[in-house]
Formats: sequence, C-alpha cells, structure tokens
Amino acid sequence: MQAPSAPAPAQADAVVIGAGPVGLFQVFQLGLQGIAAHLVDALPHVGGQCAELYPDKPIYDIPGVPVCSGRELVALLQRQMAPFAPACHLGQQVETLAAQDDGRFLLQTTAGTRLLAKSVFIAAGVGAFVPRTIKVDGIAALAGGQVLYHPTDTGVANARHVVVHGGDEAAVQAAIACAPLAASVTLLHRRDVFQAEPALLAELQTLREGGRIRVAIGQITGVQAAPDGRLQALVLQLPDGSQQHLPLDLLLAYLGISPRLGPVAGWGLAMERKQIAVDTATFATSVPGIYAVGDVNGYPGKRKLILCGFHEATLAAFAEAERQAGHRLPLEYTTSSERLHARLGVGA
Amino acid sequence: MQAPSAPAPAQADAVVIGAGPVGLFQVFQLGLQGIAAHLVDALPHVGGQCAELYPDKPIYDIPGVPVCSGRELVALLQRQMAPFAPACHLGQQVETLAAQDDGRFLLQTTAGTRLLAKSVFIAAGVGAFVPRTIKVDGIAALAGGQVLYHPTDTGVANARHVVVHGGDEAAVQAAIACAPLAASVTLLHRRDVFQAEPALLAELQTLREGGRIRVAIGQITGVQAAPDGRLQALVLQLPDGSQQHLPLDLLLAYLGISPRLGPVAGWGLAMERKQIAVDTATFATSVPGIYAVGDVNGYPGKRKLILCGFHEATLAAFAEAERQAGHRLPLEYTTSSERLHARLGVGA
Repeated sequence: MQAPSAPAPAQADAVVIGAGPVGLFQVFQLGLQGIAAHLVDALPHVGGQCAELYPDKPIYDIPGVPVCSGRELVALLQRQMAPFAPACHLGQQVETLAAQDDGRFLLQTTAGTRLLAKSVFIAAGVGAFVPRTIKVDGIAALAGGQVLYHPTDTGVANARHVVVHGGDEAAVQAAIACAPLAASVTLLHRRDVFQAEPALLAELQTLREGGRIRVAIGQITGVQAAPDGRLQALVLQLPDGSQQHLPLDLLLAYLGISPRLGPVAGWGLAMERKQIAVDTATFATSVPGIYAVGDVNGYPGKRKLILCGFHEATLAAFAEAERQAGHRLPLEYTTSSERLHARLGVGA
Repeated sequence: MQAPSAPAPAQADAVVIGAGPVGLFQVFQLGLQGIAAHLVDALPHVGGQCAELYPDKPIYDIPGVPVCSGRELVALLQRQMAPFAPACHLGQQVETLAAQDDGRFLLQTTAGTRLLAKSVFIAAGVGAFVPRTIKVDGIAALAGGQVLYHPTDTGVANARHVVVHGGDEAAVQAAIACAPLAASVTLLHRRDVFQAEPALLAELQTLREGGRIRVAIGQITGVQAAPDGRLQALVLQLPDGSQQHLPLDLLLAYLGISPRLGPVAGWGLAMERKQIAVDTATFATSVPGIYAVGDVNGYPGKRKLILCGFHEATLAAFAEAERQAGHRLPLEYTTSSERLHARLGVGA
C-alpha cells in the first residue's frame, strides 16, 4: 500500500528485472539503442544464478569465450555494460506491476522503491533467489526480529544466545563468525554432518572441543513465545523421538536459497507451461511494452541457455527502440557506427 | 559432371557451408551434440567477413567479450571449436547439392570435393567471397592461365612481362612484390590514385622513379589473343579517349573480393526477400535436414548480428541431433554434464 504522501516514483525508460547474465546484457543492448535502464534484483549483488549457483564452475558454451567461470562471465558482462551503468536496486524484489492509463507501468519493490517505466524487461530466470524459511506454526507471527534468514552481517549476535540453523558452508561460517562475540552459539542441524571446506570443518571442530560452539542434532517442530510475542525457545524433536526445549535470544537460519518466480505470475501475462509466452520476433509478452528474456520465457524450440538469452535480449531491445521511435530503425554495427561509438564512449 | 569412375564421396554427419563466426560456432554446437562436421569455405582461410572485411576493427557487442577485433573473435572461436576439429575444405565453393533417395545430400565443390551428408548447415553469410572478375569480351575464353585473380603467390611473375590491375593495397603490394623478379611490371588503374598504407605508397613511388614499376592509367576494353588462344596484349581506353595496346605475358587482377550467394539460390530452398526462409524453432529450411543460420537466413524480427547467428546455430544443432536420434533430447549444461565434458575433453 502506498500512503498518499509518498514521493513521486522515479521515471524510467526501461526497467530490467533480474541481474543475471541475460539481464546485464539486456541493459547493454538497451544502452546501444539509447535507452537507459534501471536494474532490480532480489539478491544483494548482480550475477543471478551464475553468481549464486555456480560461481566457480567452468562454462564452455558462451560463444567466443572458450571457458570461463560463472563469476568471470558476470565480471565480463559488467565490464561490457559499464558505458550504460544502470540505476541499480538490489536486494529487493519487484512486488507489484500496474499498467497506467498513459501506457506506462508502475512497479513497486519489497524495499518500497517505486518506478514509473515506459517498458519492462523480465529477465528473472527461474525466479528470485530467496532464502528458504522455517515452516512451523507461530514462527511467522513472532515479534522482535529474532529470526533472521541468511544475514550477511553476524554482528547482531553480540552478547546474545544464538542458534545457527543449517548444515552447509554458510551455516558453518556463520557459527564460527558468531563464536567470539555471542554469549553462546548452538549450531542446529538435523544430523551431525556438515558440508564445508576442510579448513572450516577443522575450525568448527576446534571450537566444539573448546566449548565455544555446541552442536544440537534435531528438527524444529515448534516455537515457544513470551506473552509479548518474543521468541523464548525452540521446540526440537531429537533423533530418538524425544522433545527438547532450546532457549535462545536469536535464530540465524541458513537453509539455502531457492528460486521463486513469485509475484510475476500474477501480472496478467499470458503463460505457457509456467513460462511467460513471447513472440520470437520481438520477445514481447502478451502485454505491449513488457518483454520476457532468458530462462523465464517460453516459445517453440526454447532451450534454457545463456547464449539464447543474449539473442532474445537483443531482439527485445530493438523491438522496444522501434516501439518508442514509432518506426523501423536501420541496423547499425558496433564496428562502424559513429552513433554507437558515441554511446559506447569509444574513439572513432 | 562426375565421371563414372570417380571415387566414392566422403560420408559426413553434417556439412557446414561457410567458415565465418557463425559457421565456426555451428561446428562447436554440433560437436557438443556428438555430431562431427565437415567445413567448407570459398576463402582459403576460416573467418569469413570478420577476417576479410574488418580483421582489425573492434567489435563491441559479442556477449561476454567487451571488445575484440574480427581477427581475435575468429581466433577465440577456433580455440572454442578445437575439441571438434572439423575436416576442412577451404578455397572451394559448394557448387551442387542434390537430395539422395536415402534422405542424404550429395554436395560437390568447385575443387571436386564430394561429400555425402546426413545434414547441411548453410552459414554462408552474404555469400561466398569471390574475386571480382574483368568483364570484357573474350577474356574468359583465353587459354594458358595468364589471367589470375587475387593470387597470393606472386612468384609466377618471374621473368615475365606483368600487368598488375587494381588500385588498392592488394594491387600495390603485388606490384611491389613482382618488381624484383619480373621482366617488367605495369600497374594499371583507372586513375593515378592508389589506396594503401603510406609506407607502401612511398615504396611504390621509389620503384616508379627507378623505372622498376610503370603506371598505366586507363580501362581495359578488350583483349588481343594469339591464334593459339594465348593472351598477347590488353586493349586500353586512355583518359583522353584514345586506345592503346599493352603487350604482356601475365595479368594479375586485384579488383576486390565481393560476396555472391551463388549456387545456393538454385537448391530449391524456400526464399523470402533473397534470404533463406527458416523456422525459428529449429532454423530448418523448407527442406528437412538443411538448416540456414546467420546472415543468410530470414525470419520475422531477423537482425543480421553475429550474436543472433550463435543462437540460431545452437537451436539448429539441437534440432538436427533430435532428428537423428528420433526423439526429444534433454538439455545438458556444459557446467555439469559429464557427457559434454567427455566430448569437450575437459576434466571432471
């Protein structure tokens, strides 16, 4: 809900939703067309799946890049789009999109950012990467911000009794980071096996032996709250089937990040098999001015490959440039066009 | 015409026509699908337009490659396709393509190479790059190989009276190269202006002043042949309108390289506005088993960009792999697929 006194939304020629490789290249192609973009992503950094799921894995099928890691590809694309540096709105998801009477779209993010856009490019991949949450009764209703999902700053643990929940590297890292400053640290996981680099596991072992980290094995089945709604204890089911109450001040949960298409599904765009249907001549959706590129779209022959998303983003940028110009535009080449050189900021 | 005693044609799973960037990436994508390709190009080297028209010009819109020259892009793509090194047939044009009763295609090149192929990928760009020829009566009928177009080896000029025809760098370079070994060198151009690097022009000037190169200004309007069909003299029209006979043993013509779609237009494929019509789900032409990718094809929304050709080549490779397999194939990623790693020859 927007209070009547809210400031006017920022005006945008284009909003790109999703800062994965295809979203970054979309910004570049819009820039070549003279269209400045805003860029929104749920993650606090650019790169999408590439940066989140396989930052170090080699990719072999980007044309002209015989091999690169996900992280390297993102760095290359950031360098490429640098001449068109977009206004970035990271760590927030576009929650609502509403068509306006003048043909523009009003977007609002989970962080309250409002953008009034002539065009929208959905490059949301398999969805926004959001932390998995704990599914037990009463936990969502707790007051006081005592349950945090994937916090990057563990300073909040200072002098508090902390439970870190999870079994992967992020959880182990957080437990180790909390140990020197928290009143106590309990690392809670469903079994006594942790997945992390050997050096981190050795450090965890040392801290366990020194009594700075306690490991609890069990599953959260409930929460115990004070009359003021504050969290007092977790109710655990132990491997032998018995129950235990684990008192705490703060719960840091690292249960993984999973993609979720989220609000996009409710924007009234024609869908086909959970993909946004597009016209392959323009990659426009069923709503003029809204495009879908990369893994989020669907069309006959679609393959979910980054390099196909690059093509889609390119045709979408041309289509929107012609829609805004109102006529067909000639193709110009970056090898020879003075107009493109000026936009790229490169010499003649 | 093929003599009855001709050897059997080479068997090929795929023939890629055109060794420009899209043709090279086509070979790579077919390789990922386990399909080995033969590669044919009219030029004596790979690279197509990129290598021929703008080897040193920077390209800015290859995704993930912020800037590279045409030559560098070709080198990157050669490195990328190296695991799938195709059988190369360079310096020859595919002249005939005939569908066989078993569904395969028999191709024959201008050099007599014959290939019997399960599938054909036309990546011929704006056409084969062939030297412009001299259009005067009688010249094509001359015997003896005394008229050479864009020869790379000028050793043939040894002890002969040579006319080099042309005004650009290739012509100037050839005249300079012939000067030390020919009996005489005449550089023939329609006006006394030559386009070349300043150092080459200075060298030309020195050789003119020393009498090693004579410059003739005029246009060829005819040829004078001996009774045995050998070339004796060129008939020139001079700037003042008069005629002159220029005796010679050898004519080296450098009139530029121009693209020509050539025989492809006669293979019975559906065309639209001089482009080969394709289905954007598969990039198949109207003939099953024949695909068209890159600048040579046409479809709604088509933009003649290298990066679009990469997408087209990828979907075409998938389509042919499924056609040969007879069923839908799952998408595998180069980041994670052991099968693709084995084909690429990279470690786990």
